[in-house]
Amino acid sequence: MPDKPHSTRTPNSLDEFGVISEFFTDKGAHPNAWPSQGVGDDCAFLDIGDKRIAVTTDMMALGTHFFDNADPYTVGRKSLAVNLSDLAAAGAVPKAFFLSISFPSIDEKWLKAYSKGLMEESFRYGCPLRGGDTVKAPVIDGKPSKTTISITALGELPAGKGLTRSGARPGDDIWVSGTPGDAFAALGDIWGYWKCAPSDYRYFKSRMDKPTARVALGTGLLNLASSACDISDGLIGDLQHILDRSGVSAVLHWKDFPLSEAMRNMPEDVRRRCVLSGGDDYELLFTASAEQSARILELSQRLSVPVTRIGEITGAGESLLIDDGEGGVLSPQPSFNHFTNEVV
Amino acid sequence: MPDKPHSTRTPNSLDEFGVISEFFTDKGAHPNAWPSQGVGDDCAFLDIGDKRIAVTTDMMALGTHFFDNADPYTVGRKSLAVNLSDLAAAGAVPKAFFLSISFPSIDEKWLKAYSKGLMEESFRYGCPLRGGDTVKAPVIDGKPSKTTISITALGELPAGKGLTRSGARPGDDIWVSGTPGDAFAALGDIWGYWKCAPSDYRYFKSRMDKPTARVALGTGLLNLASSACDISDGLIGDLQHILDRSGVSAVLHWKDFPLSEAMRNMPEDVRRRCVLSGGDDYELLFTASAEQSARILELSQRLSVPVTRIGEITGAGESLLIDDGEGGVLSPQPSFNHFTNEVV
Repeated sequence: MPDKPHSTRTPNSLDEFGVISEFFTDKGAHPNAWPSQGVGDDCAFLDIGDKRIAVTTDMMALGTHFFDNADPYTVGRKSLAVNLSDLAAAGAVPKAFFLSISFPSIDEKWLKAYSKGLMEESFRYGCPLRGGDTVKAPVIDGKPSKTTISITALGELPAGKGLTRSGARPGDDIWVSGTPGDAFAALGDIWGYWKCAPSDYRYFKSRMDKPTARVALGTGLLNLASSACDISDGLIGDLQHILDRSGVSAVLHWKDFPLSEAMRNMPEDVRRRCVLSGGDDYELLFTASAEQSARILELSQRLSVPVTRIGEITGAGESLLIDDGEGGVLSPQPSFNHFTNEVV
Repeated sequence: MPDKPHSTRTPNSLDEFGVISEFFTDKGAHPNAWPSQGVGDDCAFLDIGDKRIAVTTDMMALGTHFFDNADPYTVGRKSLAVNLSDLAAAGAVPKAFFLSISFPSIDEKWLKAYSKGLMEESFRYGCPLRGGDTVKAPVIDGKPSKTTISITALGELPAGKGLTRSGARPGDDIWVSGTPGDAFAALGDIWGYWKCAPSDYRYFKSRMDKPTARVALGTGLLNLASSACDISDGLIGDLQHILDRSGVSAVLHWKDFPLSEAMRNMPEDVRRRCVLSGGDDYELLFTASAEQSARILELSQRLSVPVTRIGEITGAGESLLIDDGEGGVLSPQPSFNHFTNEVV
């Protein structure tokens, strides 16, 4: 996300989600295909005999998802991590991934560092590269195109299991892992929206460059959570997907949100902007019935992955509310959308 | 493949296959991942419990794999067909695919036609779209990038089965489906290498734009063929992969090669160029022991997919020979490689 966002949306034009629903949603009957679910979730589930696999795919380009001069090691690492995060959100164990990459010319130094970051992340999660495609990027008016990466990751689930966005029920607690907003705090500094102290910036930047896919947490939540997603598009926007798909609403308590030490050094308006609707975080947002909370906290302790209760699911027909802890309510901004660029 | 090819290779530089082997081959031990085979084949095989799946991924860009002004309907159709062809070469039944697409702006007319071609091909093969990603292509010096498409297709195989490039044995027959070279005959006309009669050009162009993935043939060959691949990189180049991986060599008989009616209208040197090393054909090249030939011809008849015996596998240490039927031998040119562009 290198360019400063600006609104290019024209009235009635399709956005990213509109394109998917209009042109890339399979409405046909396919009686001989594997039974499937998960349209609109982080992963698709495919039932192959008595096995279930989760599949996710993400495309990333230098100049859109990464700065042109991004360290290729971190590009390699993050390009796999964002896919592993989708598997984590489904509660699936990563098992294999496939890489397609187009680049304008063979830059061995770049490729070596990219490969190192990619393969280290692959090894860390026991998720091997099983195939792929390398292609030459086209030339545009004599200028080489930018490197584009597409990764498809596959994971395994127990038969009939898998976390989706659609299981939240009124009364469920809403939880988030880690400290959301940190990645966007770095991005806002780079874009010139605010300035962080140097040591805080280094921390934020490391969260932006090296997100942690919460795979162990996701698999641990498989029998505990009622719904889950990652918050790569921003916490409120991704929560809204859970609410829409589950047919429920929510109340969030701003004072309960987990803030990193560095985030606590930022002004209140920046905190709200980053934490509520930042995006590019790969923490898990999930819901669970109140009776699971002890088990969830125990899981969190065992994995050393902090989780925090930030609100409750309410019934359909309610409005999503964020109480500010001082008798007022907050209005979050919408999440990032590549085509409308309506991020701020 | 819109630009005329030209050699940009520098001594000792890596080509596409070198990049894969140097940077994108997983050499790690992954004891908990699904058992896998198929590195260097059209598909990877993954064993999930007692099920085997085949996975392939292809990335394509306007300006590299398609002309910039290519009809979006045919782009949609072909972008899936080339992946289905890889599944066919493995003998797998297509079951699901995932699409990632980046485009500079939302052109609803283009997307609608692309989606139509894609979804028709999906329906034709009973292989549904199960997920994907749409992203905004980066801007380069104020110019929008070209549309880039990445498709990952999954198919099913019986446990322990699957065609690869490594099973050819001395004495096996070498077969090819359809009439190779037709797609490249259109491309050579567009590039100005030769001129076809208008009706021949229309036929060649339709083979270039609307290749037929030989899925039913591939699955039918599962218990008959000893090795298989598609000839998307050109017949000789792809045969060479079979020979290398099987540790064998081959003799081909040029006079036995199947030529389309349109190809028979081309001069002999153009025929050889197109048929032997053209590329962008999605026919199957396969080997089988001589005792299978009656069953193979019966399968061909049942499916109305012509297959032709064009040579025999010989032992390791022999040279690949193409006898011209007149006591001489032919020297084919190498196949297409995106990065070296050494196609002609």
